[in-house]
Amino acid sequence: MLKQKITLKHIAKELEVSISTVSKALKNSEEISRDTKEKIQAFAKLYNYKPNNIAISLKNKRTKNIGVVIPDIVHHFFTTVVRGIEKHANTKGYNVIVCLSDESFDKEVINMEMLANGSIDGFIMSLSSDTQLRNDYNHLKEVTEQGIPLVLFDRVTNAVNCDKIIIDDKMGAYIATKKLIEEGRKKIALVTTEDYLSVSKARTDGYLKALNDNNIKVDNDIILRLPSMGMQEELFKEFFEKADIDAVLCVNEIFAIYGMRCVKDNGLKIPEDISFIGFTDGLLSKYANPSLTAIAQHGEKMGELAAEMLIEKVESEDESETFQTKILEPTLIERDSTIN
Amino acid sequence: MLKQKITLKHIAKELEVSISTVSKALKNSEEISRDTKEKIQAFAKLYNYKPNNIAISLKNKRTKNIGVVIPDIVHHFFTTVVRGIEKHANTKGYNVIVCLSDESFDKEVINMEMLANGSIDGFIMSLSSDTQLRNDYNHLKEVTEQGIPLVLFDRVTNAVNCDKIIIDDKMGAYIATKKLIEEGRKKIALVTTEDYLSVSKARTDGYLKALNDNNIKVDNDIILRLPSMGMQEELFKEFFEKADIDAVLCVNEIFAIYGMRCVKDNGLKIPEDISFIGFTDGLLSKYANPSLTAIAQHGEKMGELAAEMLIEKVESEDESETFQTKILEPTLIERDSTIN
Repeated sequence: MLKQKITLKHIAKELEVSISTVSKALKNSEEISRDTKEKIQAFAKLYNYKPNNIAISLKNKRTKNIGVVIPDIVHHFFTTVVRGIEKHANTKGYNVIVCLSDESFDKEVINMEMLANGSIDGFIMSLSSDTQLRNDYNHLKEVTEQGIPLVLFDRVTNAVNCDKIIIDDKMGAYIATKKLIEEGRKKIALVTTEDYLSVSKARTDGYLKALNDNNIKVDNDIILRLPSMGMQEELFKEFFEKADIDAVLCVNEIFAIYGMRCVKDNGLKIPEDISFIGFTDGLLSKYANPSLTAIAQHGEKMGELAAEMLIEKVESEDESETFQTKILEPTLIERDSTIN
Repeated sequence: MLKQKITLKHIAKELEVSISTVSKALKNSEEISRDTKEKIQAFAKLYNYKPNNIAISLKNKRTKNIGVVIPDIVHHFFTTVVRGIEKHANTKGYNVIVCLSDESFDKEVINMEMLANGSIDGFIMSLSSDTQLRNDYNHLKEVTEQGIPLVLFDRVTNAVNCDKIIIDDKMGAYIATKKLIEEGRKKIALVTTEDYLSVSKARTDGYLKALNDNNIKVDNDIILRLPSMGMQEELFKEFFEKADIDAVLCVNEIFAIYGMRCVKDNGLKIPEDISFIGFTDGLLSKYANPSLTAIAQHGEKMGELAAEMLIEKVESEDESETFQTKILEPTLIERDSTIN
């Protein structure tokens, strides 16, 4: 019988600590107490823990599989990126294996461990919100240090050296806010998340810059900062009942759709009384009532380019470590939730 | 260096045959020529191929991971099932690893091989359309024969002995069609897929039964049978331009939403001139214009029950092979696309 490979998760369970603690302890992080580190390191040594120990043979034995890890499947954006990845990968003879982190750090680590274990030639990933909140990227560094190519898209971090592809989120929010200002809106609300999420931070920056450039004072009372990209209906209802506003920019289309429902319930007309713009441009934006003016993130294009960048790295004989970050330009798609 | 495990995919690539051929040859299927079988079996023996050879140790070494394989992430239904699985699994201390088959037989096999390789304690799956079309379930039988618990949901097959959970699709379509008949509709169209897809077959049966029970003659000219659950805009436009109809039942909500757009473009009013009902009851149904009357498939409940059935099997010491099929009842959710 083959000996079962020991994983970060096994160690964490055995020693009753978190996966993150194990990961940090094995990296000798100063965040972890000496006692805990010694215990974890001794255990790992005893059981001959090696990070992704089959992966070493990868360069010689290609699987022609690409591993994709995305945070959720509720937001249409990630679906379109996967479609783009599939499109390019399939023309190059690669299969795409998609795993969901469900916005959880632990699941992201477990998925990566599993995939890196000889199943794939490289990773395309968008970080979970939990990972961005913890600011812990050791599991990604482990993969890149072993020479497994990695492309991060949309939710990325400066902490890891790898290829990246994003849209210019700041510009997207800027364009949207400017459009609302040009309509004559003065009290433009922003529905976003806390700043730890890289895309929300950039979109908030774009919104603030557009207000500043047009001499509109920032009013923190009309900025709703949610804890995550998940819906929280109660917080919405409360916000839209109290807020004195004439336009809303939302960082995703589900927020925008719920927001429109809230203001309609309060007797307002869209776009006569209040305008809405949302990020993503998915199926919901197209078919909502009214249809939603949107910032298109070009997910399919992003996926195609990510796959292209990854496969190039996988097939390259060049061992030099040069990485690039591609930045796509967002586009404003005007529909019925704004005045045209 | 560990020796890399050889998979069905490796064999297929090396011998330049399909994964399905390899799978069948190793099962000694009569569909495959003797020559090909001998070649494949010899190769498998030479390289010591064993189906999921780490899996054997599973009963002793639980991973506390559940593997979920779903066909797509475009249809909201699968998203809700995953949410239900997560909900129950997490309360029991299990992680959920979700993989996408993207409606492809090959990807389904690759995903299952990867997951069964020691990463998970059991499977929850909905079959890809390609698998149902090929009618080839050897990869599932392999898993169950090794004693890895498997629960099939929604798209299931009689060819595999395992636990199953479905909604009564026939009843759902029957209720919907009856509702349209009670509105006074006489020319009720059906937008479905070819019958190889188990759910479409059942829904078509329910539609036909409701017409027959109410003495309405079946008109094949107003039944649109698409090749798959994917959208094909041109076929829709053509169908809705020609068809003389006053109501439409669609087997998924994306079909219904596109259908509503087509008839509106043709100058018809919903629901005055024509009514629509769609399966699924996802976000699109709720927020479409008009909102869509829907057959709720209770995806979250289905996911919770599937996880419960699976974890029971995983944790049971009982080796006897008794399987159950749970059937949930669908519900009609009335909205603005029908006359209330």
